Amino acid sequence: MWESVEVTDPTSALPPVCVLGLGLIGGSLLRVLHDAGHDAFGYNRSTQTAQDAVGDGYSASSDLDETLRRAADVDALVVLATPVTTIEPLVARVAELAPTVLLTDVISVKQEVTEIVRRVHPGGRYVGGHPMAGTSRSGWAATDPTLFGGAMWMVTTEDTTPADDWLTVATMARAAGASVVPAAPDAHDRAVAAISHLPHLTAAATAAVGAAESGLALRLAAGSFRDGTRVAGSAPALQRAMVEANRIAVLNVLSETIDRLIAARDDLRDKGNVEILIDDGHRARRAYEAMAESDVQPITGVTVGAEGWQSELRRQAHAGRVWVG
Amino acid sequence: MWESVEVTDPTSALPPVCVLGLGLIGGSLLRVLHDAGHDAFGYNRSTQTAQDAVGDGYSASSDLDETLRRAADVDALVVLATPVTTIEPLVARVAELAPTVLLTDVISVKQEVTEIVRRVHPGGRYVGGHPMAGTSRSGWAATDPTLFGGAMWMVTTEDTTPADDWLTVATMARAAGASVVPAAPDAHDRAVAAISHLPHLTAAATAAVGAAESGLALRLAAGSFRDGTRVAGSAPALQRAMVEANRIAVLNVLSETIDRLIAARDDLRDKGNVEILIDDGHRARRAYEAMAESDVQPITGVTVGAEGWQSELRRQAHAGRVWVG
Repeated sequence: MWESVEVTDPTSALPPVCVLGLGLIGGSLLRVLHDAGHDAFGYNRSTQTAQDAVGDGYSASSDLDETLRRAADVDALVVLATPVTTIEPLVARVAELAPTVLLTDVISVKQEVTEIVRRVHPGGRYVGGHPMAGTSRSGWAATDPTLFGGAMWMVTTEDTTPADDWLTVATMARAAGASVVPAAPDAHDRAVAAISHLPHLTAAATAAVGAAESGLALRLAAGSFRDGTRVAGSAPALQRAMVEANRIAVLNVLSETIDRLIAARDDLRDKGNVEILIDDGHRARRAYEAMAESDVQPITGVTVGAEGWQSELRRQAHAGRVWVG
Repeated sequence: MWESVEVTDPTSALPPVCVLGLGLIGGSLLRVLHDAGHDAFGYNRSTQTAQDAVGDGYSASSDLDETLRRAADVDALVVLATPVTTIEPLVARVAELAPTVLLTDVISVKQEVTEIVRRVHPGGRYVGGHPMAGTSRSGWAATDPTLFGGAMWMVTTEDTTPADDWLTVATMARAAGASVVPAAPDAHDRAVAAISHLPHLTAAATAAVGAAESGLALRLAAGSFRDGTRVAGSAPALQRAMVEANRIAVLNVLSETIDRLIAARDDLRDKGNVEILIDDGHRARRAYEAMAESDVQPITGVTVGAEGWQSELRRQAHAGRVWVG
């Protein structure tokens, strides 16, 4: 009878989660998991941030070794949530103090992080992740347990990725409120170079040229400047860390952008029009809006762990589908 | 005694207003003036738009000659509110049917419009204008009487501008809810090239490169892509009209933008960093935010019509101040 069917909480299989770094992303993750009743605890290098988190009712410490021993004791899922430039010594401590735990991360590049983890912790278990969420603010005060609601969370899906580890990371992303986008590290890095890192560079150039014009220009600035330069207001160190860690993919899309702008300049100078650039940009924006406004289609017909599950997940994700369990 | 002081409505001196073109800007202007009780009427080439406006309770016609004869009869302020590419025949009709009315416009370039008006209607009275307001939607259905609330409205302020005509146009901008930014046509065009036209070109390039990457990229697109490419969704014909009519000023800021992006690409390739671009962009964005968040300072100590009033208004506007009457 249907009344007696046991409903299993899909996140009941989620182990305790240990978040290393309690900035905007890591802190928001600690909060949403804890607020939902999951066992989650965090570490931050700054004592003040750890104290702020504790003061808000969360379990946090500024003692890395103590935190990692606790993670090892409870076989936690350990989340790297600091800038890519700082993770090498963190991974080294994990390799020493909690060598068998499953590692993931929330960093906006995947090839560089994968390379560091494999080099520093060769026997470690690692499945990368990247939530597509953020604001231009940073630090514990900016954390928000609803940050990941409805967001896309990329989870590394290589041909060698173990099914149970993948499911653990994907389940955490779902528990945070996100949908899961499976992708290979190189495909992810090319994609975010185009839709995340490049917008930071074009916003910076637009802002710098606009503000250099005059006080009159800034006073006349309206919606197009306000929205088009918003991400230039993010912390410069964080912007640089993500762009510079994705150097090859960013160089490709940046060169393509420069080529398009040069072609538009030549057209405007020689023919008096910018038709190609404006039309291409309009068509691209409409394609994005159509996807953003349509219902998200779930990945179907794949059992994680069955023969070829990784490539089938990637194939459906490349067509814009997401994994929701 | 203070109770008996007559308070004069500052807009009581505003003559009837005739709006030629009832798209987003012209239609919204007709609505806000009419809704505030001013005598305002409009013309639109499309019969359907004129009918829609009439159906919503406004005075509108698709008969240009009849509209201009009415404007001449009541000595209306006539507002050109169609794309710059279409105004030449409109101005010619004004010169023929309503040669003595005061003309203004709401077009995003000022040198080109000024040149057309002086050539086609050499004896005409003209004081240009440009409200810094808009959305990516267009047409009568998108009109909104609150569109100009709190917006900046540039009013052409040359050394030869007559005080009474300037005050009439500035008073209309105030009646629409905007603050007035006095500027010379060339300074205006350089400013909007930097903070309005350039953002359309960088948004188009960012959108085109992003969407060309993959369906995966569009699915991962989040806030930086959404906001950074928003204006690429505006009607291509309107975007082209404004950029192409401001060719020289746009060529300058576009070349500067290309130079900055090339320098950033070279730095990223050769030194592995994008420090200069990101830091410059961040500083510029912060300067913009500081101005946008601070209270707007009014222009003070200038009587419109007094010796040198035009240059003093421009000088204070260049420092970011606005005229509020």
